[in-house]
Amino acid sequence: MPQTEPRSAFDTATAVARTEGGGLAAELDPGWDVGGGILNGGYLLSVAARAAVLESSHAHPVALSASYLHAAAAGPATLTVTPGPAGRTLAHSAVVLADAAGPAVTVQATTATLTADAASFSSPMPAATPVQDCVSIAENAHLAPSSVSVPGLTERVDVRLDPLTAGWALGQPAEEPMMRAWLRFADGREPDPLALVTFADALPPTSWAVGLFGWAPTVQLQVLVRALPAPGWCLVEARAGEIAGGWLDEDYRIWDSTGRLVAQSRQLARAPRT
Amino acid sequence: MPQTEPRSAFDTATAVARTEGGGLAAELDPGWDVGGGILNGGYLLSVAARAAVLESSHAHPVALSASYLHAAAAGPATLTVTPGPAGRTLAHSAVVLADAAGPAVTVQATTATLTADAASFSSPMPAATPVQDCVSIAENAHLAPSSVSVPGLTERVDVRLDPLTAGWALGQPAEEPMMRAWLRFADGREPDPLALVTFADALPPTSWAVGLFGWAPTVQLQVLVRALPAPGWCLVEARAGEIAGGWLDEDYRIWDSTGRLVAQSRQLARAPRT
Repeated sequence: MPQTEPRSAFDTATAVARTEGGGLAAELDPGWDVGGGILNGGYLLSVAARAAVLESSHAHPVALSASYLHAAAAGPATLTVTPGPAGRTLAHSAVVLADAAGPAVTVQATTATLTADAASFSSPMPAATPVQDCVSIAENAHLAPSSVSVPGLTERVDVRLDPLTAGWALGQPAEEPMMRAWLRFADGREPDPLALVTFADALPPTSWAVGLFGWAPTVQLQVLVRALPAPGWCLVEARAGEIAGGWLDEDYRIWDSTGRLVAQSRQLARAPRT
Repeated sequence: MPQTEPRSAFDTATAVARTEGGGLAAELDPGWDVGGGILNGGYLLSVAARAAVLESSHAHPVALSASYLHAAAAGPATLTVTPGPAGRTLAHSAVVLADAAGPAVTVQATTATLTADAASFSSPMPAATPVQDCVSIAENAHLAPSSVSVPGLTERVDVRLDPLTAGWALGQPAEEPMMRAWLRFADGREPDPLALVTFADALPPTSWAVGLFGWAPTVQLQVLVRALPAPGWCLVEARAGEIAGGWLDEDYRIWDSTGRLVAQSRQLARAPRT
């Protein structure tokens, strides 16, 4: 008998099922936390994106804008998709992810069908240290500030920090809030548009690069998925444009293993207290 | 008798009034178009932001994410604000701008109270040609591609293109989709957070820089307002990260006259057909 391929941790944790009443439900996995039991914002957005795609005639999320209303609790969640205008090129919808306490994440979703078309312009992948010479976050969790609990996310997304942007982990923060890292799922599941949505919020807070430690809760996050990623490691570059007045932005660009820009994101977060 | 200062074109065109029934209404001004009677997406988002602020205990929009469902018609519009969680630091809400045909723009809004706090990090303003040596779009409307009608927006927002990024207007497109320009309102109204929301979508499509002319309708736009802008000209730099598969992103950064980064935006748009 043929063996059934085991479902990846990501596909299991982001599964969305139709309930008997016709609604959509998910079981939020406590293992995708960023420390302290707080579920990762990118993970939650992947769940919402899966719901948007389920209710769309298009296969891929291409633009998602999410407001994080409260920290969603692990466990049962409902997903309510309100369809908007839809056509041959794209479809709009609104998605609400709710836990027992009510709406936790509200999302404006645009779905479309991504192709393998060559780009007429694509930002080139920046020079980065080869992945085999990078620093595994999972293997160096003991280097994290002692106030920080080890996030489950780091066991599911394999993050390899470019040592050129990892001085903060060795007590030598940089002048510029920028990090680069190679990412893939720890269990080898290949990237796809839904995975890129999680990758778009999977690094430590960008402010850590300049030595501002502590969590930076996401307030609003926009993710654009631009192309179908090739198998293999993705390179992520995260920059903050400004840290001021208790606020921080984080701007991600993600390239696939062929060097193609496949996703972009920007979030407004609360800045760690100094 | 003291003279009443005339209200600026921007404040008049984005005014939001409470109706007898307790709702909110605006009169969308046909003069803020981008050609062909299509109202500018940034202008529409400023109207929605004004509604969000009206219904918030906080004074400023700090994060707005908008989906553009259909081209809003000039004339009467309603604004429906659904409040979300609100606190001392920030407040969430959802805003729907509707014309006679129904919801045209849906917006997730985060309001807060911006301060004049110094930044602990702020991306420096790029080198740009001084404004007096830049190229006025309004004065050079005759250089636009003949297929393009002159947008009303160019008469209300004074855009001075850096000649170093304006080769496209002279038949010499660049390799890189990037434009820089100085912006202010034509009637001298000083910038504020609501104005920055319009400035965040006020340049010609970034694809024009590489010679891909034609309109690029906005699908989703996120604007972050980071600080209160000082009076005077703002510098805007717009870049596309990728043009592919019929899609284009436009990434704006805006600095005020003191060189402080005051706003950022990113939009996904349909790319002009080639």
